[in-house]
Amino acid sequence: MSLLVVGTVAFDTVHTPFGTAERILGGAATYASLSASYFGVQSRIVSVVGGDFPQKHIDLLKDRNVDLEGLQIIQNEKSFFWEGKYHNDMNTRDTLVTEVNALEKFEATVPDSYKESEYLLLGNLHPGIQDSVLEQMNKRPKLVVMDTMNFWMDIALDELLATIKKVDVLSINDEEARQLSGEYSLVKAAKTILAMGPKFLIIKKGEHGALLFNDEDVFFAPALPLEDVFDPTGAGDTFAGGFLGYISKTDDISFENMKRAVIYGSAMASFTVEKFGTDKLIGLSDEEVSERLQRFLNLTRFDIQL
Amino acid sequence: MSLLVVGTVAFDTVHTPFGTAERILGGAATYASLSASYFGVQSRIVSVVGGDFPQKHIDLLKDRNVDLEGLQIIQNEKSFFWEGKYHNDMNTRDTLVTEVNALEKFEATVPDSYKESEYLLLGNLHPGIQDSVLEQMNKRPKLVVMDTMNFWMDIALDELLATIKKVDVLSINDEEARQLSGEYSLVKAAKTILAMGPKFLIIKKGEHGALLFNDEDVFFAPALPLEDVFDPTGAGDTFAGGFLGYISKTDDISFENMKRAVIYGSAMASFTVEKFGTDKLIGLSDEEVSERLQRFLNLTRFDIQL
Repeated sequence: MSLLVVGTVAFDTVHTPFGTAERILGGAATYASLSASYFGVQSRIVSVVGGDFPQKHIDLLKDRNVDLEGLQIIQNEKSFFWEGKYHNDMNTRDTLVTEVNALEKFEATVPDSYKESEYLLLGNLHPGIQDSVLEQMNKRPKLVVMDTMNFWMDIALDELLATIKKVDVLSINDEEARQLSGEYSLVKAAKTILAMGPKFLIIKKGEHGALLFNDEDVFFAPALPLEDVFDPTGAGDTFAGGFLGYISKTDDISFENMKRAVIYGSAMASFTVEKFGTDKLIGLSDEEVSERLQRFLNLTRFDIQL
Repeated sequence: MSLLVVGTVAFDTVHTPFGTAERILGGAATYASLSASYFGVQSRIVSVVGGDFPQKHIDLLKDRNVDLEGLQIIQNEKSFFWEGKYHNDMNTRDTLVTEVNALEKFEATVPDSYKESEYLLLGNLHPGIQDSVLEQMNKRPKLVVMDTMNFWMDIALDELLATIKKVDVLSINDEEARQLSGEYSLVKAAKTILAMGPKFLIIKKGEHGALLFNDEDVFFAPALPLEDVFDPTGAGDTFAGGFLGYISKTDDISFENMKRAVIYGSAMASFTVEKFGTDKLIGLSDEEVSERLQRFLNLTRFDIQL
């Protein structure tokens, strides 16, 4: 099945207690499409970069079977750039620099060849852009997953709420869920947010795992306990790409299958955090992915018959 | 099978954002023995209270089939008293008052009738007292579970390490695991702590669940997402009591059974936090416990075949 991913393709400079990586490949669409590629799913990217974006990054994405027809390259602009520094706990970070650059006038034109995509990931961007992508589709995708962040709650709440109303799955972190709902309890937050329109809500809790809610049920996937979290950048986007990669591959949007997709997304995210940027997410073998899944099974399986 | 529980029986005054409860029944041995009672297990308590401890609390424990032969009552002393205030996030708290009272000269005498108990919970007390209880046993229990806290790491580390070396399962929270090991990563912390002697380590992460480690494996049990966490006091002790209650009932100390015990302990703890003190932990029906277990199954079950 076809997966359309709209989101940033960018440069990141990342400072962690383990060292610094300068101007490495980053961006939500990058992580999500690389992650989805492990499910045999070709992601169709809608994004923009500047003339400074190197051919080697283009080649890397193409090697992972990512469709770049919708990647605009604006020669006289620079690519989106983010620089951040993680604290010692690796759970919190400060943004040092954000250069919007080519993204400032980004209009997110969906190529005709993408307009019947069956699955759609609206990566974290201005909600107006996310909405515009959805509106350009020739038919409503089978499942629309939307990521966002507190920044848009602060500066574009009305547009954000209008877009949230149209999507099937909203994927945000715990602090964002609290801000959006005004509720501290994540159970109450989920009820409030589901009443805003989406049928499903994913609350990402970083090293504490992820919750999947619908009106009636809740499912929890832990994050894999790791010896070292080296660089958390992109973990959430990798999760979303793995989630929709698995959904696209299986073409099944039941809650039972979404539970599996949450586990697959968590497994993919556990790779991303083990090295800088996309380093670990490139060139994983099928055996490595299976072995990681097995670790999730071992971590969570217990035998209680009621 | 017989379960011996050593730990505090106390009065607590608890301040939460929802209100205050004054001088209510508390203490590690109280929560643990009440929790274990739901597995048809009679807990034998070794503890001490003062002459101010009311008959109604004695009756309450006896009604739940708790053996109080080892509960010393020192008439001219007062019972241990703790007063604390939870912050709005309910995850952190300040201790306002600690009155050691009757506990100050507590010698933890194990009655003869307790000395062949097959399971032993060393609740959070001075490690010298915990050690003394273990030494008084006529035979080594099948499984010894030890709880402790950062306070003893600060003031009695050598004795703590000597006691830890003798137990089978150490049960501490994430911050305590980090302090004890000097490692931030809980995976690394677990390796360091298991090298100190215990065969199993439980790291409690409060609302983020609990991890069970042995040399080779790790198992994770989430905490149940709740609409409101009303009063977290006693959740860890309830967990430990449920864990050992289930182990005692099934008389099986395999890792597979410990995984089930962690789930049962988590289920019992999810009741405790829903009301002040022991209010919710008294008079639960079998149906309520089964229904809670079913919620854990729904929360964690997924079907992936590798």
